[in-house]
Amino acid sequence: MPFMRAVLRLLAVSTLFGLLSGVAALAFYFGVKASSFILLGVLAGYRAPEAPGEGGEVAWSLGRYWLIPVIAAAGGLAVGLIRRRMGLREYSTDEVLNAYHNARRLGLRETLAGLLASAITLGSGGSAGAEGPTGRLAAGLASAAARVLKLRREEARLGLIVSLGAGIGAIFKAPMGGAVLASEILYREGFERGVLYPALVASAVSYALFGSVVGFAPIFGGVSIAFDPLYLPLFAALGAIEGGAAVLYVLWLRRSATIFRAVIKSEVLRPALGGLATGLVGLVAPEVVGPGYGWTYLALRGSIGGLPSPLMPIWLLLALLPLLKILATGLTLGSGEVGGVFIPGIIIGAFAGLDVGLIFHRILGVPTAPFVLVGMLSLLGAAAKAPLSVTLMVVELTGGYNALPYAMVAIAVAYLASGKTALFEGQLDETRQQHN
Amino acid sequence: MPFMRAVLRLLAVSTLFGLLSGVAALAFYFGVKASSFILLGVLAGYRAPEAPGEGGEVAWSLGRYWLIPVIAAAGGLAVGLIRRRMGLREYSTDEVLNAYHNARRLGLRETLAGLLASAITLGSGGSAGAEGPTGRLAAGLASAAARVLKLRREEARLGLIVSLGAGIGAIFKAPMGGAVLASEILYREGFERGVLYPALVASAVSYALFGSVVGFAPIFGGVSIAFDPLYLPLFAALGAIEGGAAVLYVLWLRRSATIFRAVIKSEVLRPALGGLATGLVGLVAPEVVGPGYGWTYLALRGSIGGLPSPLMPIWLLLALLPLLKILATGLTLGSGEVGGVFIPGIIIGAFAGLDVGLIFHRILGVPTAPFVLVGMLSLLGAAAKAPLSVTLMVVELTGGYNALPYAMVAIAVAYLASGKTALFEGQLDETRQQHN
Repeated sequence: MPFMRAVLRLLAVSTLFGLLSGVAALAFYFGVKASSFILLGVLAGYRAPEAPGEGGEVAWSLGRYWLIPVIAAAGGLAVGLIRRRMGLREYSTDEVLNAYHNARRLGLRETLAGLLASAITLGSGGSAGAEGPTGRLAAGLASAAARVLKLRREEARLGLIVSLGAGIGAIFKAPMGGAVLASEILYREGFERGVLYPALVASAVSYALFGSVVGFAPIFGGVSIAFDPLYLPLFAALGAIEGGAAVLYVLWLRRSATIFRAVIKSEVLRPALGGLATGLVGLVAPEVVGPGYGWTYLALRGSIGGLPSPLMPIWLLLALLPLLKILATGLTLGSGEVGGVFIPGIIIGAFAGLDVGLIFHRILGVPTAPFVLVGMLSLLGAAAKAPLSVTLMVVELTGGYNALPYAMVAIAVAYLASGKTALFEGQLDETRQQHN
Repeated sequence: MPFMRAVLRLLAVSTLFGLLSGVAALAFYFGVKASSFILLGVLAGYRAPEAPGEGGEVAWSLGRYWLIPVIAAAGGLAVGLIRRRMGLREYSTDEVLNAYHNARRLGLRETLAGLLASAITLGSGGSAGAEGPTGRLAAGLASAAARVLKLRREEARLGLIVSLGAGIGAIFKAPMGGAVLASEILYREGFERGVLYPALVASAVSYALFGSVVGFAPIFGGVSIAFDPLYLPLFAALGAIEGGAAVLYVLWLRRSATIFRAVIKSEVLRPALGGLATGLVGLVAPEVVGPGYGWTYLALRGSIGGLPSPLMPIWLLLALLPLLKILATGLTLGSGEVGGVFIPGIIIGAFAGLDVGLIFHRILGVPTAPFVLVGMLSLLGAAAKAPLSVTLMVVELTGGYNALPYAMVAIAVAYLASGKTALFEGQLDETRQQHN
């Protein structure tokens, strides 16, 4: 039966992509752990808090945090050298989207150079996420495997996007979110249903492999939220603010890249300056350094006193944190360091949500946690134009779903308020053709 | 600012549709409660078990269950009379899909006649679900409101599909699932992103209203499932079986309608015969009578001894239950009684999953609950060609998400195995045009 054979082949290929994505997630997970242990931990004694499902501790120590700008600058310099020596151009989700839309392949050499560069970026204090590089790494491994195994052209193309989702799903421990992301991220408005089924299989397999090594506990597990229908309108207001923050985030990412390119010609020194600048922001607010969504977990738990600033009173720090994180992420990524834009988006959204929640808490006595949670979700959903996968991710990140109705209202408003501004330039406007 | 005004207008309209959908869900919920209390409860002393979030008790009593065929036949006759007297033609999800695709409106008279007919169908023992009629009722109310308030043509059209999802989301207490359903159900392959944002708002509002009256507890709450990556391949096998069952279910629904129409000319007597035939199947297996997903809850809990058959040994009952539920649902709906196809799909999938789980339990000692849960999900996802919303619904129905990776594999296989066979004939093949 040719139909059954085609189904079985698709399952086999999806399982293969899933296994490779799991390997990619593990490589990146341990790569960043090692890199930050050495660069920030040993050299500066700086340790960021970790969320429960990250495998570390919520406790943190600033150590010799004044060394951070130096370490971050050195990290940036290393990234610049890798760019020149190993011929690393891009290393981003956009690159995968473009490769998919134009049926191009991803080179193995650049894939591995990017793994190194992004581990150094994150480990030396760059403000960026682990998920983008993981997805890019998974897509690169899939592309290489497709060549070695002489898979069909259409399968190789499918592998790019399915593995992007499966890699991100694994490192977030959000397999369903990862699978849906693969279908949703290709277009600003459309949805690639033909990608969904292989993505479901690959992402489940990838998650199973990654979790078997690292554990299956959700990253922000243990935060419980109750639903109260009367609070629903407050989340429309939150959505509007997060939509605005999403626009600011995206525009600054673009703008900072233009500025850096105009100011410094050297591709080697540019990321070094970006690292230095990020590290200087970190002197004011250490929360912006590194991927560090442990800080988000503190916000989620309401441990506001646990957010340190060596230079500012807490109320000013809280008010400025969303802006400082936007600033630092643009400095890191705009200068050519290598990392993901999802986790910074989550953190910016969470800090902005905390501010909104604190105001409503003061006026109406409502709890702040749902605002933090829904804030991260709605900013990212609006910026990535991927509301479904982001919603699923937040369910899977927190292990809870009570806040869904809040999130539904906030995300709709945030999406509408953010207009056409989108994080990924590789997204096409709408579905161009059905995928087979 | 015209952009802001457009956003606010969309929010206002969505909120209105959400409120109406909540009213529809409440009307239907209490309508069916009253109808089954009188028809089956008072007359036959029959009481089906209820799942925790349905507001009743898990305990059941068969009473004078031999009266069920008579009551079901009388119920069918009443539905036949309503069809003729009140000019009720269709009353289905397909009707809403067709009205959306052809920008038609739904008449208020038929909307209310259908509410009555479906409450009688379900209350008198017909094998059908509450969600389809609820969605249809919500869409009908939205269509009427659009006329009264002179909404724009495009808003009226949006109201149909947004309310369908919001109504189903409320009665299932699965608001996210309902919202995604609205975007996903229109096409066999596509996804209507423009519907998603108003649907998110409407479904959250509808859920908030419905839950404020009925309670927010998830319908199948309290079933906890652990994830074990080694079991993943078993769910590929489950998916293949559920995909086959989905095809059988859809084909028998179509075929039974053809047979009934060929055999009995009278539109009044046809549903009476359908009711009688359903009731006779109920003599063998009372589990097939009425919407009754309380039985599914017993299967989920593993209380297999709690499944009664007055005429068969338990092993034979268990083996036959998926087929008997398919048979009964075709008899009910093919004859012209009025009800939804989702909940029967859930129950068929759960019973088939129970069988598969029991076999694997015997051989490998694995727990059965995940197979029941994933079984309901994968059959319905494949049959409705709506895998995302069904996945979300099952998360929301059970209040848990640990089984997601299992479900991802099973649903992908079930979808592929079921080919092009689809529950809803009103679905278009793919996205025809973007919705504005």
